[in-house]
Amino acid sequence: MKRVLDTDIYALTDAGLSRGRSVIEVADAMLRAGIRVLQYREKERKAGVMLDECLQLRRMTREAGCTFIVNDHVDIALLVDADGVHVGQEDLPVEAVRQLVGPDRIIGLSTHSPEQCRDAIARGADYIGVGPIFATKTKKDVCAPVGLEYLDYVVQNHDIPHVAIGGIKLHNAGEVVRRGARCCALVSEIVGAEDIGDMVARLRRAMAV
Amino acid sequence: MKRVLDTDIYALTDAGLSRGRSVIEVADAMLRAGIRVLQYREKERKAGVMLDECLQLRRMTREAGCTFIVNDHVDIALLVDADGVHVGQEDLPVEAVRQLVGPDRIIGLSTHSPEQCRDAIARGADYIGVGPIFATKTKKDVCAPVGLEYLDYVVQNHDIPHVAIGGIKLHNAGEVVRRGARCCALVSEIVGAEDIGDMVARLRRAMAV
Repeated sequence: MKRVLDTDIYALTDAGLSRGRSVIEVADAMLRAGIRVLQYREKERKAGVMLDECLQLRRMTREAGCTFIVNDHVDIALLVDADGVHVGQEDLPVEAVRQLVGPDRIIGLSTHSPEQCRDAIARGADYIGVGPIFATKTKKDVCAPVGLEYLDYVVQNHDIPHVAIGGIKLHNAGEVVRRGARCCALVSEIVGAEDIGDMVARLRRAMAV
Repeated sequence: MKRVLDTDIYALTDAGLSRGRSVIEVADAMLRAGIRVLQYREKERKAGVMLDECLQLRRMTREAGCTFIVNDHVDIALLVDADGVHVGQEDLPVEAVRQLVGPDRIIGLSTHSPEQCRDAIARGADYIGVGPIFATKTKKDVCAPVGLEYLDYVVQNHDIPHVAIGGIKLHNAGEVVRRGARCCALVSEIVGAEDIGDMVARLRRAMAV
């Protein structure tokens, strides 16, 4: 059976927010902190560099028993044998991604409304992103925050695995979990932390509600 | 056997230079003008739109007997059953692309020096782009023009199919062909022409040297 998402932290890379550290260095700290789901999301890279980094991350995550997801680039996900791919509403449709990756790889789809949630389930997504919960500057093309209401809808109505995303920080992660979020995605709060291991430990305490 | 490149015009799409016409409308005019190789190259599109356009172009080019190449996006090339993929020096390496597309699809690689030409042959590219021959504003991340000297090197030393590219216009296409170019790629001169059929006819006359 596909292991989709743990009830925990979903970490994403972002070289631009990593205080000058490399993606590999940051991922290494995440894995040492016990992160169990990692998504490679680097929008400004050329594909050749992405492939090199993903090959390294695949080795590291496999060794650590961490699920490895590649954002958008289905070709790279296939080349490195990633566990899955994450796409947005304007990326390749889930059915097209499924055609390429087969039944066993995970497909995650970002959703921003109840309608998109139902559509994601109908299309066969394995999990959904739910957000942006709060305002965020991490993603350039993101829509306005949908707040906790959309999360409530998902929690109360659907069994599909989900990850809450968008503006989640140490100070509000507990609130998101109390609203029923199964898994929380964080970007800047983790990759931008001076001590990533310490930040992950503090996040886990905040989320242990 | 793979049909790689005709000795003719290699047309590329570019919605931004198409005088407000859609990619489909421009491609239709190209195919009516008898274009036999068409590359889909749209850098500013989301993948969902690219897939839709490429599905249409695949139907149109198949009907017209035109070779259809997709720039960069190996996943989209596979999904639409394109004849090939074209990559640049910083995109996925030829070996990785080959792993995904198999032996029968065409792989084109942009090259800018004798060293890159020899490397492309060693890696198993089916054809190479040779350029930029002249200065061009069409591509944002292009290197400085390499002039006709690099074209001379390729013509005189290698049998690999090639396409000269970069700043080729009606007024200089004849010169490029006289230097031995097997095939010329043009972007703005064709997609930006008011009458695409007429421009292709004039280019063919200029290239019949």
